[in-house]
Amino acid sequence: MIKHTSYFDDKVQSLGFATDTKPASVGVMAAGEYRFGTEAAERMEVITGALTVLLPGQSNWETFSAGQGFDVPENSHFDLKVTTNTAYLCTYG
Amino acid sequence: MIKHTSYFDDKVQSLGFATDTKPASVGVMAAGEYRFGTEAAERMEVITGALTVLLPGQSNWETFSAGQGFDVPENSHFDLKVTTNTAYLCTYG
Repeated sequence: MIKHTSYFDDKVQSLGFATDTKPASVGVMAAGEYRFGTEAAERMEVITGALTVLLPGQSNWETFSAGQGFDVPENSHFDLKVTTNTAYLCTYG
Repeated sequence: MIKHTSYFDDKVQSLGFATDTKPASVGVMAAGEYRFGTEAAERMEVITGALTVLLPGQSNWETFSAGQGFDVPENSHFDLKVTTNTAYLCTYG
């Protein structure tokens, strides 16, 4: 089953599904600033565009472009600045 | 704006958006067999999973896995066999 979810007034939308090994989602973020919380640990990979992220415990924002990714610990949160429509893959756990 | 579209009884779902250069969509296909028509030329790239495709004018099916992709000419169609949930990026034109 594929689960469509909208966040932040439809400015972030995702399609949740199960890969052969982990739960995952692909999604798109429009330009904006967002804060996400995590339950399981997450691996975020940029497909197109770029994500500028402030990871938990960090004081510097880092920008990740297409083909790059970052990890977010479980039970934490991360802040994002998005300047162009950005597609991403997130895998959980 | 991000446009959610469902096909084949929700077994294929996509999120349409504009990259800096081209229209695009990210999507997920559940296991199944599908035929898609094209208007503009399309570049399909597999993000997770695999797509087995019969391209127009071809007699052999080809399988593309994560990180691989294929091109479909404009105003044509292509057939897909999907055996596992597969996420993809499609760019148009």
